[in-house]
Amino acid sequence: MKSYCELDKESLKEVLKVLEVRYKDYCSRNLSLDMTRGKPSPKQLEMAEVMPSMLEKGDFKSKSGADCRNYGMPFGIDEMRELFGSILGVSEAQVIIGNNSSLSLMYDCLMRSLVFGEIESKKPWSQIENRKWICPVPGYDRHFLVTETLGFELIPVPLNEDGPDMDMIEDLVKNDASILGMWAMPLYSNPDGYIYSEKVCRRLASMETKAPDFRILWDNAYVVHHLYDDKQGSLPDILALAKEYNHANRVYEFASTSKISFAGAGISCIAANENNLVHTKDILKVQSIGPNKIDQLMHAKYLPNLDAVKEVMKKQADILRPKFEKTLEILDMEFQDTGIAKWNKPLGGYFVSIYVYNGTAKETVKLAKEAGVALTPAGATYPYGIDPFDSNIRIAPSFPCLEDIEIAVSVLAVCAKLAAVRKLLEE
Amino acid sequence: MKSYCELDKESLKEVLKVLEVRYKDYCSRNLSLDMTRGKPSPKQLEMAEVMPSMLEKGDFKSKSGADCRNYGMPFGIDEMRELFGSILGVSEAQVIIGNNSSLSLMYDCLMRSLVFGEIESKKPWSQIENRKWICPVPGYDRHFLVTETLGFELIPVPLNEDGPDMDMIEDLVKNDASILGMWAMPLYSNPDGYIYSEKVCRRLASMETKAPDFRILWDNAYVVHHLYDDKQGSLPDILALAKEYNHANRVYEFASTSKISFAGAGISCIAANENNLVHTKDILKVQSIGPNKIDQLMHAKYLPNLDAVKEVMKKQADILRPKFEKTLEILDMEFQDTGIAKWNKPLGGYFVSIYVYNGTAKETVKLAKEAGVALTPAGATYPYGIDPFDSNIRIAPSFPCLEDIEIAVSVLAVCAKLAAVRKLLEE
Repeated sequence: MKSYCELDKESLKEVLKVLEVRYKDYCSRNLSLDMTRGKPSPKQLEMAEVMPSMLEKGDFKSKSGADCRNYGMPFGIDEMRELFGSILGVSEAQVIIGNNSSLSLMYDCLMRSLVFGEIESKKPWSQIENRKWICPVPGYDRHFLVTETLGFELIPVPLNEDGPDMDMIEDLVKNDASILGMWAMPLYSNPDGYIYSEKVCRRLASMETKAPDFRILWDNAYVVHHLYDDKQGSLPDILALAKEYNHANRVYEFASTSKISFAGAGISCIAANENNLVHTKDILKVQSIGPNKIDQLMHAKYLPNLDAVKEVMKKQADILRPKFEKTLEILDMEFQDTGIAKWNKPLGGYFVSIYVYNGTAKETVKLAKEAGVALTPAGATYPYGIDPFDSNIRIAPSFPCLEDIEIAVSVLAVCAKLAAVRKLLEE
Repeated sequence: MKSYCELDKESLKEVLKVLEVRYKDYCSRNLSLDMTRGKPSPKQLEMAEVMPSMLEKGDFKSKSGADCRNYGMPFGIDEMRELFGSILGVSEAQVIIGNNSSLSLMYDCLMRSLVFGEIESKKPWSQIENRKWICPVPGYDRHFLVTETLGFELIPVPLNEDGPDMDMIEDLVKNDASILGMWAMPLYSNPDGYIYSEKVCRRLASMETKAPDFRILWDNAYVVHHLYDDKQGSLPDILALAKEYNHANRVYEFASTSKISFAGAGISCIAANENNLVHTKDILKVQSIGPNKIDQLMHAKYLPNLDAVKEVMKKQADILRPKFEKTLEILDMEFQDTGIAKWNKPLGGYFVSIYVYNGTAKETVKLAKEAGVALTPAGATYPYGIDPFDSNIRIAPSFPCLEDIEIAVSVLAVCAKLAAVRKLLEE
């Protein structure tokens, strides 16, 4: 079979007719499906429901003897710091525990930079008017929104299968002192599911930056979120690498149990080197009486060690994997030989990212919406919502059931093909 | 009996001898007592231990149907907004729910002012180099530390029995555009237990300020924390007053369940008028995925309405009241007729604040420490730790048991008298 681009106009019109019939059929079904949000499904969330009941009356002490009901332990109880240490492959001393939102830890990290500056800063970042931030694209919309809101100009850099385009990044940061940092989602990137290679990690850790206070916000959101037991992505310890290359202060790493326990009620953490920890703790201890220790204690009981985490994540993967596979199966089936779409087959994380025919992502999402299937807005995975190729669409298969995924992804595919064929006919 | 000031040197020396014998006796007892922190006692905290177990498997929905395990509801679930609405006497629509630390809500509020400015601000507050903040004194050390850390010059204003010195405040804010706001702890102030009168509240709400974006951070920490059923302090609704006087944006109000449920694991809230809510929510929804709803849900089950809160607080008062009364009894007994100390008898809150003979607070705390009794450092209740009279000492009777309070307050009294007599002999 020929790809769409190879078809002559007459053949394209034949294809269009078939697609229009299929599309009309979907529209007549009164569908109402939502593929927008990377939320865990109820079945995943049920697993952790046992957690609060693990706190028994008279048993509210951490293992160091801290009363988790009262004030104290401003940086978290030992068991949670140890757990995140083993999850991230760092020392427990490198870990500060937060509340339920790692996003807010990242936001606050930047707020501190703006108001106080980083250790090497000559002045607080709020005084650097043309401050800039590197955003590997496509990426996580909420990351981009944070730095946009905080007054950074966002610089998109293409994200390849092995990580962001390092030639471009090295060139940018070497020459521009107003580029103060970058986002990184190094394992199972949102939305492509790419994994930064060790080589890319080493280049990020070793590159020379014009800004002495350059920071990487390393969002290791999916550190244990593998779909396959026998094909697991992994990363080097970026904090150790940064130290190895004498840029020890370069990285703040983040993680959470949001997609291990409860999405809205997990435990988050920052990991950093000693200098950054001291800097951060000095501010944190003024800001707050410390994170919620009851939440930490129930998590410590539910997830007493890395093995327990792995066991939970294996069960989570058993729920998620069929949804990813169904999504990919439909994409394979619908787009085979059309030559108008490509996508990565992720080994973990929460998304599948599809690149439809250039210039048709917005139209595809619009058509799908009219057929009753809500997709993440086209462009959302790019700074300012602008996808220069109007091509990328993020698919979130975690929440809907298999049957809904099958229909929703089929609708998406039909819409993408419809938009592509119409565009080809115009060209 | 004559007061110490009326005694001649010989009589003072006699008094000194007796005090030195008593002090020596305490020193020989190897005491190790801590009166420094306003922490609830284990007996108070036990009451809420039932809370996590009130979450039953399969029952994790808020009353509006929100799945408390998942993402969503960035400003809190309805039941907690309603509860705080009724606690504060405001509408639920005026309430935003936070996590476990109201202090961090206040801190973040000021961080927003620094980075974004308030609605009427011409520029973000971080760009106002000589920014100033009014601090009623004595007051809460952690309040002062927040504004000090965030680069405000702290202006102490005396706190009287009916609230801060309004003549002074009106004069200050009318003439200085760099005074951007003030702290207020209007009910059972930390440490004196004073209650702002309605007249003071009205003057705060109505006064003219040179800064158009002047803000009052109204920390209503002890809003339901009465010691006596029949003698309860109360406040007018400051948000309504501010509106009445056409300064509707002036106030952010804060409260929490830290001393209702768990000190380290309660629920906090901001209450504000619509303009400030819109301003705050626009930023909050970028900062975080929203506060922990599992914590909110268990609180909503434990504290379904204001009556439930009142019932819990009555039981808390039954535990706290004897400790306050023991403290006051010892103070009465020890200082009767000496004329060298005064204190307020608080009707609620967490502290008793004693004013010892001018110039002897530091010495008193030092002597107590040497006798094995840890007190809040003298001066801690003043900006920069400087009590101009070196007189105020904060007593935190909530945590120790009655027996320990009896000894600790006796030691404090003996030390204060010792320091006073020694000073009088030098004068």
